[in-house]
Amino acid sequence: MEEVKHIKLRKNQKVTELLKEMEASGVMGAGRIARAAKILKKMVHNKECKIFFGVAGAMVPGGMKNILIDFLKKGYVDVFVTTGANLTHDLVEALNFKHYKGSPSVNDYELYKKGIDRIYDSFMPNKAYEKLEDFFDKNFELIKNSEDITEFLWAIGKLLKEKNSILGVCYRKKIPIFCPGIADSGIGLMVWGRIVQGKNIKVNAFEDLKRIMEISWQAKKKGVIYVGGGVPKNYIQQAMQLTGGADYGIQITTDRPEYGGSSGASLKEGISWGKLKRNAEFVDVVCDATIALPLIFSVLY
Amino acid sequence: MEEVKHIKLRKNQKVTELLKEMEASGVMGAGRIARAAKILKKMVHNKECKIFFGVAGAMVPGGMKNILIDFLKKGYVDVFVTTGANLTHDLVEALNFKHYKGSPSVNDYELYKKGIDRIYDSFMPNKAYEKLEDFFDKNFELIKNSEDITEFLWAIGKLLKEKNSILGVCYRKKIPIFCPGIADSGIGLMVWGRIVQGKNIKVNAFEDLKRIMEISWQAKKKGVIYVGGGVPKNYIQQAMQLTGGADYGIQITTDRPEYGGSSGASLKEGISWGKLKRNAEFVDVVCDATIALPLIFSVLY
Amino acid sequence: MEEVKHIKLRKNQKVTELLKEMEASGVMGAGRIARAAKILKKMVHNKECKIFFGVAGAMVPGGMKNILIDFLKKGYVDVFVTTGANLTHDLVEALNFKHYKGSPSVNDYELYKKGIDRIYDSFMPNKAYEKLEDFFDKNFELIKNSEDITEFLWAIGKLLKEKNSILGVCYRKKIPIFCPGIADSGIGLMVWGRIVQGKNIKVNAFEDLKRIMEISWQAKKKGVIYVGGGVPKNYIQQAMQLTGGADYGIQITTDRPEYGGSSGASLKEGISWGKLKRNAEFVDVVCDATIALPLIFSVLY
Amino acid sequence: MEEVKHIKLRKNQKVTELLKEMEASGVMGAGRIARAAKILKKMVHNKECKIFFGVAGAMVPGGMKNILIDFLKKGYVDVFVTTGANLTHDLVEALNFKHYKGSPSVNDYELYKKGIDRIYDSFMPNKAYEKLEDFFDKNFELIKNSEDITEFLWAIGKLLKEKNSILGVCYRKKIPIFCPGIADSGIGLMVWGRIVQGKNIKVNAFEDLKRIMEISWQAKKKGVIYVGGGVPKNYIQQAMQLTGGADYGIQITTDRPEYGGSSGASLKEGISWGKLKRNAEFVDVVCDATIALPLIFSVLY
Repeated sequence: MEEVKHIKLRKNQKVTELLKEMEASGVMGAGRIARAAKILKKMVHNKECKIFFGVAGAMVPGGMKNILIDFLKKGYVDVFVTTGANLTHDLVEALNFKHYKGSPSVNDYELYKKGIDRIYDSFMPNKAYEKLEDFFDKNFELIKNSEDITEFLWAIGKLLKEKNSILGVCYRKKIPIFCPGIADSGIGLMVWGRIVQGKNIKVNAFEDLKRIMEISWQAKKKGVIYVGGGVPKNYIQQAMQLTGGADYGIQITTDRPEYGGSSGASLKEGISWGKLKRNAEFVDVVCDATIALPLIFSVLY
Repeated sequence: MEEVKHIKLRKNQKVTELLKEMEASGVMGAGRIARAAKILKKMVHNKECKIFFGVAGAMVPGGMKNILIDFLKKGYVDVFVTTGANLTHDLVEALNFKHYKGSPSVNDYELYKKGIDRIYDSFMPNKAYEKLEDFFDKNFELIKNSEDITEFLWAIGKLLKEKNSILGVCYRKKIPIFCPGIADSGIGLMVWGRIVQGKNIKVNAFEDLKRIMEISWQAKKKGVIYVGGGVPKNYIQQAMQLTGGADYGIQITTDRPEYGGSSGASLKEGISWGKLKRNAEFVDVVCDATIALPLIFSVLY
Repeated sequence: MEEVKHIKLRKNQKVTELLKEMEASGVMGAGRIARAAKILKKMVHNKECKIFFGVAGAMVPGGMKNILIDFLKKGYVDVFVTTGANLTHDLVEALNFKHYKGSPSVNDYELYKKGIDRIYDSFMPNKAYEKLEDFFDKNFELIKNSEDITEFLWAIGKLLKEKNSILGVCYRKKIPIFCPGIADSGIGLMVWGRIVQGKNIKVNAFEDLKRIMEISWQAKKKGVIYVGGGVPKNYIQQAMQLTGGADYGIQITTDRPEYGGSSGASLKEGISWGKLKRNAEFVDVVCDATIALPLIFSVLY
Repeated sequence: MEEVKHIKLRKNQKVTELLKEMEASGVMGAGRIARAAKILKKMVHNKECKIFFGVAGAMVPGGMKNILIDFLKKGYVDVFVTTGANLTHDLVEALNFKHYKGSPSVNDYELYKKGIDRIYDSFMPNKAYEKLEDFFDKNFELIKNSEDITEFLWAIGKLLKEKNSILGVCYRKKIPIFCPGIADSGIGLMVWGRIVQGKNIKVNAFEDLKRIMEISWQAKKKGVIYVGGGVPKNYIQQAMQLTGGADYGIQITTDRPEYGGSSGASLKEGISWGKLKRNAEFVDVVCDATIALPLIFSVLY
């Protein structure tokens, strides 16, 4: 048995040095952060390994955009699955709107009157929707003929001048981006707005499955990273299930397993389904993603 | 100020009597269960009110199917939004498979070898997938021409002989059923299986939005009920946002607001977005849905 | 394997009938509530079994006083351990103050100015402290010579005219009541108030251990029930550890195990320490106690 | 309104630089970590401010001992309140036992047979108890005449040769250490073991209150830091309540407020009680303490 070494803080300590201390401690949350960082490093250094990155939660309003974009830009991500909400917030920022530091204890009706949408303590000007309307009005012809959701999202990404955008980077780096629930988002609402104007758009709801399954089939090794649960996690999990299971797994979630939902399910449970290999290296990190992500992803710099 | 009256248990006490005790107590979790029951009653008795019911979480493996079906059958639900997972588990049961009482602490690899998929402590035989394959092989021609996801799900429901099925009831009662993330599910995988066989299916990813938005526009009053978060909650929330906000709201979730995600967001936050009316009656119930649902829905019998 | 039978709600359904439905369902939270009720029944019907009842959390402000008192009055409890806070709130009510239904989203400074202390959404008039001062001023001579904390608490209980009081019932039924952290409470503050007036009180901090350990040693079978964690749980757990472990266990907590604290630790973990017998019957219920307690304890009526 | 600036990770980034990024981001968990670090800095640099440090949770088995000891050694702590469990684990390590990296999914009965006590994924050899017995047998005469719990704990600290010990440091630096629930711990059990041997010990359960209240009365400014809840938090909170309230507050907890317990109560709630000043600077950090502590306390080096 290996001793729990108490974490030692030092002046000018680097984040990666703190991670080493957490590894030496090795237990509870700190131990799991360190283990996640180690597995992440293995994934990206294993050349046979394809990385499937699923991101739910308010990561753009939560200040995590750069970390996601860096990860995408470095070429580490082979499959990126996220929610329509994150892509909408990314698009809003690409169109020059910002999110603002707010407070959860303000009067929400006062915010409403001021045109501010609250995401816990992150505020977004509701005016962003007007800009979105504008964007979709101008560009609808250029995106409406997309065969599937990936192509639809790439088509949006292609239109963006702002370099620091998830949609833009996915388009430029041709990273397969998936968002099965895209209709459930501000972007979805914009499409609906055009449909009611009589415009046509026929994006196939199932077609994308071919793309994710093919990448998964061809991968010699597979690593999965889940930030939050929901559709992004489950969509990758089911690809794993049919293609032999993941070899590496990192999950950052605060939901808990006892309630039975997919978002809180432990990675280990996936072994029964064949979503995770029996001898996979994996870890469940129980932590607010805005704290865990910067720590874990520090090992990549 | 109203006194907290301590809950009194009695011999042969009815669930509805316990709810009255909880109302008289009025605080913490018990008080919120009672408040949810009261709001539910108001919603269903207000004839002007359209009810939007969003259900995430493992409700079918978790033994909640009858409660959902009763609610649908009683004609209370005007819009039903759920996850592909719940529909897949419903379909599996409609095809005569069952879920079984299991344990979270078994060896998952042993389960894998025995062909058992684990959903926390609920077990499903993996053989169910073979039956699903079969079902989709036989019936694909009958469902593939669906214009949108609602029609696709109704087409499946139409095929089911088993009466006690969510999909079946939604079809027979023509309840608008939405599942924006349907590709993310066992049903999605079955469609993919046919696509790789060269079959065609063109279900439109965005088309459904028209239907939910229309119902929402026309409703004089709107009530929302969220079991869990994820896509079902958010898809209804965005319909509310564009159509004046909900008048009644019930949310049953164990996720918490501080992490910023939509699933854990308080209903109150929706006021800032216009998703909830300023003077709406609403309550956030922080409880395992398999405990809260039977209690709250008891008032309807 | 036993099938998950979906819970069936019925008109006029009794709480005990709902519990049977939850037993037939058998999974997730509902299944655990039913399992807890079953184990509780076994405990109280096993004549060889001594019951150790540990209660933390705001159970008096939360409307649970009657359920606790009924359980104590029925003679089921052999050892009762709780927090100073619960006893203070019980004493406050015995002195004719009440708790009131409030709201968590009020301005706390406004409450302060109005003399209202907030316990989430339960309000207590701060004036209660004056009455406590009064009570301890008048009665200090009668309680100050208590040898240990149990005797100190019994001495307070003896003074209460109000019948519906935890302290009163424990005194009258001579139920051994423990509160190792009693200094940490409003009652503690009242004692301090007398000490600074120059009065003397020498209650021994360790003496009680003899009493709980003796009861535990002599018990042929032992059942533990934990509402919340903290000192009440741990104080019983350590008695179990030295006396062969519990045969039955029920834990109602919303804290989670991954953080490593005693309050969130699973009962199963206790097997490693010898706090729980290897073949014990036990269950961890993850639920707000104000919802779980009424359900589980219904089987006793 | 201030913009949410997305966190930028860099090669060789220092922890304090990451904290600055988190401050610039300013929302959700990351924002709160940064805010806590800032408030901590203010507390320690405000010479009029007395710091009250309450620590619950398995901080010694969780690898946090050095961080606590550094904080104590730097002279920042004026009042230290903790659980008997943490002090027992500290004593165990001072007597040359270690904690070991384990796993939560092992068979607990196997651990029992091997003499290993499990604290989630941290393992302690049960043999440590023999050494504790030994220690208390040898030294009982030297500690039994302590007037109150602080003196009792200092008396133990005085006996320790191991320098890297919480108890030792508190003794040597004469830091007032409080543990109202000391009977509820391994140390308590050792005292009980001597009592049953017929030895005498009369530590006063209430006497300590004088000490903490005096320090609190005399402080011009007060800062509170809570790691976890339970007795340590509440014991400090009640001192604040009677002495004008805290000026600064940091709380690190994963418990949630809706259940009504003191451990999960927001700091803000304390304003209604007078435990926190109306214009205090405070923050609730919702995070595993083994992750939050190293980050926040990094600003002190």
